[in-house]
Amino acid sequence: MTGPGAFITLEGGEGSGKTTVIGKIGEYFNRLAIPYMMTREPGGIEIAEKIREIILNPSHTAMDARTEALLYAASRRQHLAEKVEPALEKGLTVICDRFVDSSLVYQGYARGLGMDEVWAINQFAIHDRMPDLTFYLDIEPETGLQRIAANQGREVNRLDLEGLSFHQKVREGYHIIASRYPERIVVIDASKEQSAVEQDIIRVLQERF
Amino acid sequence: MTGPGAFITLEGGEGSGKTTVIGKIGEYFNRLAIPYMMTREPGGIEIAEKIREIILNPSHTAMDARTEALLYAASRRQHLAEKVEPALEKGLTVICDRFVDSSLVYQGYARGLGMDEVWAINQFAIHDRMPDLTFYLDIEPETGLQRIAANQGREVNRLDLEGLSFHQKVREGYHIIASRYPERIVVIDASKEQSAVEQDIIRVLQERF
Repeated sequence: MTGPGAFITLEGGEGSGKTTVIGKIGEYFNRLAIPYMMTREPGGIEIAEKIREIILNPSHTAMDARTEALLYAASRRQHLAEKVEPALEKGLTVICDRFVDSSLVYQGYARGLGMDEVWAINQFAIHDRMPDLTFYLDIEPETGLQRIAANQGREVNRLDLEGLSFHQKVREGYHIIASRYPERIVVIDASKEQSAVEQDIIRVLQERF
Repeated sequence: MTGPGAFITLEGGEGSGKTTVIGKIGEYFNRLAIPYMMTREPGGIEIAEKIREIILNPSHTAMDARTEALLYAASRRQHLAEKVEPALEKGLTVICDRFVDSSLVYQGYARGLGMDEVWAINQFAIHDRMPDLTFYLDIEPETGLQRIAANQGREVNRLDLEGLSFHQKVREGYHIIASRYPERIVVIDASKEQSAVEQDIIRVLQERF
């Protein structure tokens, strides 16, 4: 007997350590023998990948902020329809690196388009599929950006080139969203030692699964 | 002394003769020495063109209807921001082949996403920039599709491959929209002789300009 799986998302600013944490969540579900799928937008979905190429192309300096928000919503929709929904319906737990909160925060708040307006287009994109649980990895932007600078292997994209004040607005935005959805969003202090962050995550998972 | 120019859009099903009519509108403004710009989405705007390539690629059979609607809205936004708005602000009259009504009708009504939902994402895209005047060229789908079939030079795209019932729904959708916005949308009987259609258009322009 399988019902639909749980939908878990991870959110956080640049360098907040989402990738490492996702690996640990996977290990936790392995130990419990809970079948899961890890993904991130655009997630290898051809149409979603092509949309992302347009967004992240550094030569697209004429990109309007509203165009960008609509493209993120389009990429999200396709990834959700082709990959996430089918997995949930098969009973898999889905762990997704960034989802709708990223758009509310980055486009809605940090770029100033308005959270409610960006919510309207994302509501269309997700069509009632909200995460069951969201971890927000909270960290000072200075610390996060230093982590990225130290990590030579990671490709630099258009977002990394934004100034520090942009990343500070991102953090403010996440705090607003977290206070709006206190049941769904769990705030994790990501400035702690890696092992302490992992323990905090596992504690929440144990309560819920 | 120049104020912002007028924004005129043309709407209609496949083969309704929009291209010919647009040429005649241009000739009319030439005679009156009213400066104008003709355009159509994506209008040579690089980002908008790239978005359209994704929509119209015939190999993208996995394209979700919501993704498609968001991509049309994104392409519209970029064309509006980079090309239409700057022209209107310079005082040019802008004549645009298809605009927001096409999305309400094709995605909202004919594909069944709901006009109100599609309006929500387009409201975000156009940000209060509605046309001042819209000509809807009304024609039986059978007649329109026969015209396309007779026109060898025109490239066949993904929309032409839809069945007749789709194009009939498109026409129904336009009738609904026209009754919702009777002040803005002028319905033109496009099944008449070309010269009679042109006369009807010119008569409306004379009343308004």
